[in-house]
Amino acid sequence: MQFHHHGYVSGEPRIQDAAGTGIDRPAELPDEMDVLIVGSGPAGMLLAAQLSQFPDVVTRIIERRDGRLVLGQADGIQPRSVETFQAFGFAERIVAEAYNIAWMNFWGPDPENPGDIIRTARTEDYAFKISEFPHLIVNQARVLDYFAEAAEHGPGRIVPDYGVEFVGLTVHDEGEYPVEVRVRPSASSAAAGERTIRAKYVVGCDGARSGVRAAIGRKHVGGFSAHAWGVMDVLVNTDFPDWRVKCAINAKAGNILHIPREGGYLSRMYIDLGAVADDDDHRVRQTPIEEIIRRANEILHPYTLDVRQVAWHSVYEVGHRVTDKFDDVDPGEERAPRVFLTGDACHTHSAKAGQGMNVSMQDGFNLGWKLGHVLSGLAPASLLETYSAERQPVAQQLIDFDKQWSSLMARKPEEISDPQELATFYLGTAEFPSGFMTQYGPSEIVTDAAHQALAAGFPLGKRFKSVEVTRVCDGNVIHLGHHAKADGRWRLYAFADAPAAGEPSALSAWAEWMASPASPVARHTPAGADVDAVFDVKAIYQQSFQDVDISRVPRVFLPTSGPLGLTDWEKVYAAGPDAWRTVDIFEERELSRDGVVVVARPDQYVAAVLPLTATDELSAFFAGALVDQRDLASIGS
Amino acid sequence: MQFHHHGYVSGEPRIQDAAGTGIDRPAELPDEMDVLIVGSGPAGMLLAAQLSQFPDVVTRIIERRDGRLVLGQADGIQPRSVETFQAFGFAERIVAEAYNIAWMNFWGPDPENPGDIIRTARTEDYAFKISEFPHLIVNQARVLDYFAEAAEHGPGRIVPDYGVEFVGLTVHDEGEYPVEVRVRPSASSAAAGERTIRAKYVVGCDGARSGVRAAIGRKHVGGFSAHAWGVMDVLVNTDFPDWRVKCAINAKAGNILHIPREGGYLSRMYIDLGAVADDDDHRVRQTPIEEIIRRANEILHPYTLDVRQVAWHSVYEVGHRVTDKFDDVDPGEERAPRVFLTGDACHTHSAKAGQGMNVSMQDGFNLGWKLGHVLSGLAPASLLETYSAERQPVAQQLIDFDKQWSSLMARKPEEISDPQELATFYLGTAEFPSGFMTQYGPSEIVTDAAHQALAAGFPLGKRFKSVEVTRVCDGNVIHLGHHAKADGRWRLYAFADAPAAGEPSALSAWAEWMASPASPVARHTPAGADVDAVFDVKAIYQQSFQDVDISRVPRVFLPTSGPLGLTDWEKVYAAGPDAWRTVDIFEERELSRDGVVVVARPDQYVAAVLPLTATDELSAFFAGALVDQRDLASIGS
Repeated sequence: MQFHHHGYVSGEPRIQDAAGTGIDRPAELPDEMDVLIVGSGPAGMLLAAQLSQFPDVVTRIIERRDGRLVLGQADGIQPRSVETFQAFGFAERIVAEAYNIAWMNFWGPDPENPGDIIRTARTEDYAFKISEFPHLIVNQARVLDYFAEAAEHGPGRIVPDYGVEFVGLTVHDEGEYPVEVRVRPSASSAAAGERTIRAKYVVGCDGARSGVRAAIGRKHVGGFSAHAWGVMDVLVNTDFPDWRVKCAINAKAGNILHIPREGGYLSRMYIDLGAVADDDDHRVRQTPIEEIIRRANEILHPYTLDVRQVAWHSVYEVGHRVTDKFDDVDPGEERAPRVFLTGDACHTHSAKAGQGMNVSMQDGFNLGWKLGHVLSGLAPASLLETYSAERQPVAQQLIDFDKQWSSLMARKPEEISDPQELATFYLGTAEFPSGFMTQYGPSEIVTDAAHQALAAGFPLGKRFKSVEVTRVCDGNVIHLGHHAKADGRWRLYAFADAPAAGEPSALSAWAEWMASPASPVARHTPAGADVDAVFDVKAIYQQSFQDVDISRVPRVFLPTSGPLGLTDWEKVYAAGPDAWRTVDIFEERELSRDGVVVVARPDQYVAAVLPLTATDELSAFFAGALVDQRDLASIGS
Repeated sequence: MQFHHHGYVSGEPRIQDAAGTGIDRPAELPDEMDVLIVGSGPAGMLLAAQLSQFPDVVTRIIERRDGRLVLGQADGIQPRSVETFQAFGFAERIVAEAYNIAWMNFWGPDPENPGDIIRTARTEDYAFKISEFPHLIVNQARVLDYFAEAAEHGPGRIVPDYGVEFVGLTVHDEGEYPVEVRVRPSASSAAAGERTIRAKYVVGCDGARSGVRAAIGRKHVGGFSAHAWGVMDVLVNTDFPDWRVKCAINAKAGNILHIPREGGYLSRMYIDLGAVADDDDHRVRQTPIEEIIRRANEILHPYTLDVRQVAWHSVYEVGHRVTDKFDDVDPGEERAPRVFLTGDACHTHSAKAGQGMNVSMQDGFNLGWKLGHVLSGLAPASLLETYSAERQPVAQQLIDFDKQWSSLMARKPEEISDPQELATFYLGTAEFPSGFMTQYGPSEIVTDAAHQALAAGFPLGKRFKSVEVTRVCDGNVIHLGHHAKADGRWRLYAFADAPAAGEPSALSAWAEWMASPASPVARHTPAGADVDAVFDVKAIYQQSFQDVDISRVPRVFLPTSGPLGLTDWEKVYAAGPDAWRTVDIFEERELSRDGVVVVARPDQYVAAVLPLTATDELSAFFAGALVDQRDLASIGS
């Protein structure tokens, strides 16, 4: 964690100084704003936390509820989400309070007494085989609390406008704030009366029954299956020995997906309520909790549940829907989008793969920096077209995966020939539910794979997968990727060729070019901003850290900035042998020993892999993605 | 982290329910209280956090300042202190913001240019060789913030009474509140006028010039050396390559102890100001900051410091003093103590071994549970005599170590024959500055070593050193010792003999006895309290966790408690092979394969090591340490 950069900070370092629109931010929803976020769920709150890092942007987030979410809803947290929490600064805290999934067990009918269940398989959870982050279970309410804190403690000081309901919107062809939005106080609010506000951009994070989706005329395509599930969060005493283990239970009497929750006592159960008649007309949703508990006991036989408290429960039919496009621009229309959809507003599916909240957050992470860039003048508005293009295929993959998983989960025992099949499927597809299968295709923000071989372990379009290295300034072993905070900046990782720091080398030549007026730093950093305001440029040497003389490292990797002009010591790393570390990132990620530049986007996805000598290609990449600030300066003058 | 035990908790689980005196705690300092803590430094704030776990005890903490500490003072954090933070629930947060010491480097005169310094040695820091916790640097103000949060979020809801100054006290021979204390508003306070309050016990945590120490007539024995040091927390730019590494610099021009601080930019320097003349009369303390910076530059030559901001600075002469006794009972006097001294109030020394704050906190940890026990009726008042008996020898060891270290640090280069000597001393004595050398002698709360051989790796009187095990209920690998929160409870670790759970075994017999009216649980748990209110009883099996059938584990290890009567699943562990773990606690701590019971005190020190069959000895131990609640019940009836 870096702080004291603008002078000594005595208190909580996680609270950044307010800046820009975060200074004296009005408590009341103003008439005009840059971004209006509709809904404070996982996508909306992540967006608020991200845009709080762009304090020149006026961001408001409206929420129909009168305050924070208290109960229920999602609870599955992929490793990719924990990685994202790390970027927002609260991973260690949420990990400490969450349930960590170490195992998933499978139960089926006892061949000798088919009315009883027995444990048929144990599988280690995939998380730590895939990344350094765990697979957690913690209530959505707590995830939102942490993002709310990040939004409020960021320079933009963003807090939700509670008790405000979205009514409708109209996108006009012109004007600085072309989106006209009608809002009204929620039913529970003391205030009354509809009002009209205007925004440059609106993001619909308003859930499966999204009003924003309806307002822009997007279609939610798909339907409900004829299968209903009860879900309950309960405190119980039980003789079921796996109460604290994630389990898929497949009994003659039906199926249960059993998910232990944070705190050591609570668990969530998804309980099979069976097929729904064609003429049911959603009457199944009225199933009382007593019936759900009775079904659970029936399925768990010979074990029993003695329910002491029901924290939350619900009944739903599995639906699978994807919206036809995630923004308001129709095919063939020639303009940048003004309205976006995220999360359940554009993809809904079963809860049982534990994906929804995670994919929603990644929607927000994908869109947040793009809005921040465009509204700060760093990138052209066309950047916003990549949001729907990148995220819609991810939603489709999710639906496809979830259909397969939820139908496997709903089978009757007699439909199962291989009792290990579910376990095999679970492990075989682990990268997907971890959140690491997402790969964005080539665009102005992801290059083609011409030089991929120089860094085979950093696939273009996938998220930058961290490895431990040694920080040269202090000899601490740290995860290279964990320095990539969600601060809206681009990361340039310059992996050095073989010569030592200060010796003539491809890295030295690259560093010299990076310090020149031709470099992306010079072209795309706004006048007057700190040299590291847009680009975070790091060097990773092949030597051991003792053999990197920091005095001889090019200054571009030791920039000075801030009001005190202080040197940042934490951008120089070493990959060679270290008593405290066993991996070498060059080997682990198959990096060329002739050096390679890896560019990561502000949302941590790999954007470019280039030789150190390919300065023209690096320039061209950023020229395609970002605005040339020198042009702006000459227009302004 | 365990919660939801009394029903579903939606918000921050680190905030416990208020209870007892924590419900509607008066904002104003009352006339009478059980414990009055004087001073809100590290010892005082830890005491407040600990006593917040005893909400039946009325605890107040007065502080002369008007609010939280803002600047300066201690910053070195031993691994033992981080272990203590873990017990108080904030280790992961403070680790995330602190500077982690990975290396200590040594600098001396360049033989070829003796006016220049060169690096002479690098040593890996000892922390991770000694425990799973790091060696940190973070400002005392932040440590106090976290303890303040723990005190306020505990059931007792303790917050300091700021702006109140201690004037004096008198210990009377009788009365329920025998300590009469005079206090007055601080000079800066708007209020005026001295008042008298009364307490059962008073703890002086009021620093080197302790008024409490003076009031009970204790002598602070020792003196100042004739050597002065300047200390400064500074933000600089520099070409000194080890700005971010802890260094001992021994130059012809003098010595520097250099300590990087949290946040990546700030460092602290202790700068040798040389010998002080006999007639100096503390005039050296007026040395201006410019002179300190000039000296630093002189010592660092050929490197230079460009100081951009001085966050804090001070000048001091090294003093070494220990108070003759840490409570108010004179030798030969036959009564339990009423007044205690902690921290700098009873031991002062140089800052440079980074010990002061750490030893002070352990003073508080040692005393806190004892006060809680006595005032809750769990233990006789004589328990309080063990505080001075246990902590005074620790203070003396600290002074002896620090004298040696600080004189080594103050030598001139020509006094040093072996340039590696300082490095060798540093590593050779690592267990002491880690905080793990403390070993309390036999007393009513530490047994003799008759059965030590059954658990050689848990030395009696030393703190319980954690090892990873697998939690049976969910297959998570966790640190056994990290479950030992600072909740004022005794831990009984029953390491099983070889038979599996449910089979006839020494453990099964012990468990049966523990569930009987003869057990310490039955004798020493107050009537009406939860079965685990005083004793946290855990089992550790030799098998792999898959081979421990939790259904067959004795119920004493799966207690039910709280208003919902919920089962605690998290007291049963397995030590056998596990894909996620490499150590076996039986091997790592040399535990008898015939089983052994290890008792740890509420402050985590090993109190007893006994065979599973030695139930009489276990009974006798607790009969000597705790009050028999059945006697109280019969008196009451």
